[in-house]
Amino acid sequence: MTRRPLGEVPGWSIDATSGNLTHHSGRFFTIEGLHVRSSYGPVREWSQPIINQPEIGILGLLVKTVDGIPYGLVQAKMEPGNFNSVQLSPTVQATRSNYTRVHRGSRTKYLEYFTEPRPGSVLADVLQSEQGSWFLRKRNRNMIVQVDESVAAADGHYWMPLAELRSLLRIDGLVNMDTRTVLSCMPASSFANAQVLTTGGMAAALSRSISGSGKPLHHAETVLSWFTAAKSRHELAVRRVPLRGLPGWRYTPDEITHHDGKHFSIIGVSVRTDDREVSEWHQPLLYPSGRGVVAFIVKEIGGVAHLLVHARYQAGLLDAMEMGPTVQCNPGNYPGAGPAFLDYVQHAPADRVLYDTVLTEEGGRFYFSQNRYLLVDAGDDVPIEVPEEFCWVTAHQLTDLLRHGYYVNVEARSLLACLHSLW
Amino acid sequence: MTRRPLGEVPGWSIDATSGNLTHHSGRFFTIEGLHVRSSYGPVREWSQPIINQPEIGILGLLVKTVDGIPYGLVQAKMEPGNFNSVQLSPTVQATRSNYTRVHRGSRTKYLEYFTEPRPGSVLADVLQSEQGSWFLRKRNRNMIVQVDESVAAADGHYWMPLAELRSLLRIDGLVNMDTRTVLSCMPASSFANAQVLTTGGMAAALSRSISGSGKPLHHAETVLSWFTAAKSRHELAVRRVPLRGLPGWRYTPDEITHHDGKHFSIIGVSVRTDDREVSEWHQPLLYPSGRGVVAFIVKEIGGVAHLLVHARYQAGLLDAMEMGPTVQCNPGNYPGAGPAFLDYVQHAPADRVLYDTVLTEEGGRFYFSQNRYLLVDAGDDVPIEVPEEFCWVTAHQLTDLLRHGYYVNVEARSLLACLHSLW
Repeated sequence: MTRRPLGEVPGWSIDATSGNLTHHSGRFFTIEGLHVRSSYGPVREWSQPIINQPEIGILGLLVKTVDGIPYGLVQAKMEPGNFNSVQLSPTVQATRSNYTRVHRGSRTKYLEYFTEPRPGSVLADVLQSEQGSWFLRKRNRNMIVQVDESVAAADGHYWMPLAELRSLLRIDGLVNMDTRTVLSCMPASSFANAQVLTTGGMAAALSRSISGSGKPLHHAETVLSWFTAAKSRHELAVRRVPLRGLPGWRYTPDEITHHDGKHFSIIGVSVRTDDREVSEWHQPLLYPSGRGVVAFIVKEIGGVAHLLVHARYQAGLLDAMEMGPTVQCNPGNYPGAGPAFLDYVQHAPADRVLYDTVLTEEGGRFYFSQNRYLLVDAGDDVPIEVPEEFCWVTAHQLTDLLRHGYYVNVEARSLLACLHSLW
Repeated sequence: MTRRPLGEVPGWSIDATSGNLTHHSGRFFTIEGLHVRSSYGPVREWSQPIINQPEIGILGLLVKTVDGIPYGLVQAKMEPGNFNSVQLSPTVQATRSNYTRVHRGSRTKYLEYFTEPRPGSVLADVLQSEQGSWFLRKRNRNMIVQVDESVAAADGHYWMPLAELRSLLRIDGLVNMDTRTVLSCMPASSFANAQVLTTGGMAAALSRSISGSGKPLHHAETVLSWFTAAKSRHELAVRRVPLRGLPGWRYTPDEITHHDGKHFSIIGVSVRTDDREVSEWHQPLLYPSGRGVVAFIVKEIGGVAHLLVHARYQAGLLDAMEMGPTVQCNPGNYPGAGPAFLDYVQHAPADRVLYDTVLTEEGGRFYFSQNRYLLVDAGDDVPIEVPEEFCWVTAHQLTDLLRHGYYVNVEARSLLACLHSLW
C-alpha cells in the first residue's frame, strides 16, 4: 500500500466547486463536509469532513453446529488501513457496490446465503450504525445465518468454533470490527444455557449478566424511557456543506488535516493485493490522529454485572444518539481533563481490568485506526446513582436491544463481543 | 381563522436567497425544499416543499384505573387546520418551543407528569415518526403515564374511559392524530386479558390478533428480517434544497402550489382563540390537495386476524422506510390505476368493510387534511403469498414493535388504534 496525494487518486475526483471527493462511478462513498450545531456539551458548533456512504452493505456470518459446538466461517482478509494487514473477518463483508460488482471484479463468495431465497435460517438480520463521528448515517446489514448442511471453506476461509473466535478477541488487532459487530448481534437465546461460573464474584456476575439469569437493576421499559428522555433533552442539527473551506481544516493537494492536528486527516492510498475481488485499487482513507480509548465500567449490582452505558450524541448517527460505552474518546483531543470516567479507566489498578486489548476499526475506510478497548470492574468506586446521561444495563439487556437497529453504537457493540470473550 | 398571503404572515419571513419560510425566533419549524432520488418506484426523482421541525415535542396521555376501568385524560383542543375546529387531543400535546414557552404564553398544563422526576409510572415512552411525505425527519415523544392519585380535570380536559375514547374513533373527525398515535403505543400487556369474542369468525380472529393469544403466520424474527431486507433493497437519497425554484412547483406571493394542482399547497393563516397558551398567532400550513385513502387489508389466517403491512419508502422518514398500511395514497394524484390494492379497498362490498371513518391529520401543521381510514376483510380475495414489499402481521406483533421507534408509520399507527375500537 502506498500513499498518494488526494488530487491524484485514480478513479476519484475532487469536485471543482465543493471540493467533495467522489468515485467516478458515483458509487462506493463520498467525502463531504458536515456542519454541526448542538445545544449540548462544551463545543456547540463545529465543521468536519465526513464519509457519506448511503448504500447498505452486508456483514454476514455463516454458522453451523457440529456435535453441539457452534462454528463460524471466518476469512483472513486484508484491508488497506489495517496496521497488520490481515485480520479475521466475517464470512461476507461487502458493500452493495462490491457485491453488485460495480468494480467489475469477481463475485463475492457465499453471498447466496445472505440474499433471498437462501439456504439456512436467519439468527440475526438487523441494520446497525457505524462510527458516528466519521460516517454520515452509515449503516450495515448485520446477519447471522445458520446452515445444517456441510459448506466447504473456500481459500482463505476457515470454520472455527465461535468460542475460539471469541477468545481471539483478546489478541491485539486480530479480529476485525465487522466480525465484532456481527458477533454482538448473536441472539440472547444462544447464551441462555450458559453455565454460571462460580470462580470469583465477578465471573459469576458476568455469567448472570450474559445469560440473563439475574435480575437487572432497571426494567427494560425503564431503560427505553431513559433513552427516549435523553434523546429528547437536546437538539443536534447537522447540515451537509462543501468539503472545501471547512472552518478549522486545511485542504492541501496532499491531504485534509485539522488545524491543530487533532481528530483525523483524509489521505489517499493505492492498494495491491491478490486476495480480493479486484487486485489493485485506489481510494481515500480517514486517518485518525491517535489511539482512542473505548471502555465500559462494569459493576456488580445484586449479583449481576452491569455495564454503564452512555447516551451519546454523535453527529453522523441517524437519530443523533445511541447508547455508547462509558468512555469513548481520543485522549489526544483533550489538552486538559478528558470526559467523565476517562481518567478512571486509564489508571485503574491491574486487578480491576477485566479486558484490555488494542483493536482496529474498519480497515477499508480508516487508516491505522486503533482503540484501546477496556472493561474495568469499578467495585464500589462508582455508585449506583449516576449522571442522567448514563444508565446501568446488563449484557443481556444490550443483547436484547441489538435485535433492533440504532440503539447500541459500534464501539459498545465491539465491547459487548469482547465481554463475551471472558466467558 | 383567516388566510393570509405567505409573504404577510406576522412573525414569519421568507429568506431572500432560499425562499425558505422561518419563524423570527428561529424555532417552531421551517418550510424548506427537498430533492429526492430513489432506485425504486415509478417516479425516481422529484422535488417538494417539506416541513422541517427538528425539535421533539411531547404527546402525552395520562391514564388512571378506577374500579378496574382504565380512564384517559383528554382535552378538547382547537387546531387551525381542523375542518371541525375542536377535536379530542391527548392530555399534553406540545412542541418543545411551546412547552419551553418560546411564544411567551401560559404554561402547558400537566407537563409535570411528562418530565422528570414525575409522579406516576411510565407505560410507554417512545419517539415515533410523523407524516414522512410532509415532514423531514419529524418525530415526537409518545408517552403514556399512569397515576394512582386523583388528578383533577382542568377546564377543557375530561377523564374518559379508554374504551369510550376508542369507540369515538368511529365518528368522523373527532379523535385527533396525536391521540391516535399515543393510543397505538399502549403496551401489549394492556390487551393481554382480552376476552376472545365468539360472535362471528372475524370478531374472534381480531380478538386473538389484538390479545396475542393466537399463533402469528410469521415469527417475530422473520418479520424483522423481512423488514431489514426490504430496507436494504433500494436507496433513497434526500437533500435539502432552497424552497424557491423547486422544479414542478409554483411559488407566488400568496402560496406555493404544485404545477398540476396535485399533492399539496403551502398557505398562510392567522388564528384567534381563547383556549390556547396564546390567543392569537400566525403560521404557514400545508394544505393537501384531496382526500387520501389509508387502509389495512385484514385476513384471517389460522384463526388469527393478520394485517397486510407495506414496507413503505417516504422521503422524510429518518431511515427512509417504515411499515405502513396496505394502501396509503391520495387517489387524486393518480390519473390512471393507483397503487396496489387501492381499487380493491375502495370498492370492497359493505359486508367486508370492518371500519370506514374519515379522520384528519395534525391540525397544527395541515389545513383541512382528511383521510378515509379503512379496514377491509379480504377473505380469500388476497392470498397468503404477497409481493416482497408486503408482509402479514398480527395486531399484537405491531403493538410489540411500537415499543421501539421508526418501525410503524403514523398512518398505520392510526389504523391500529382504529382497529382497537372494534374490540
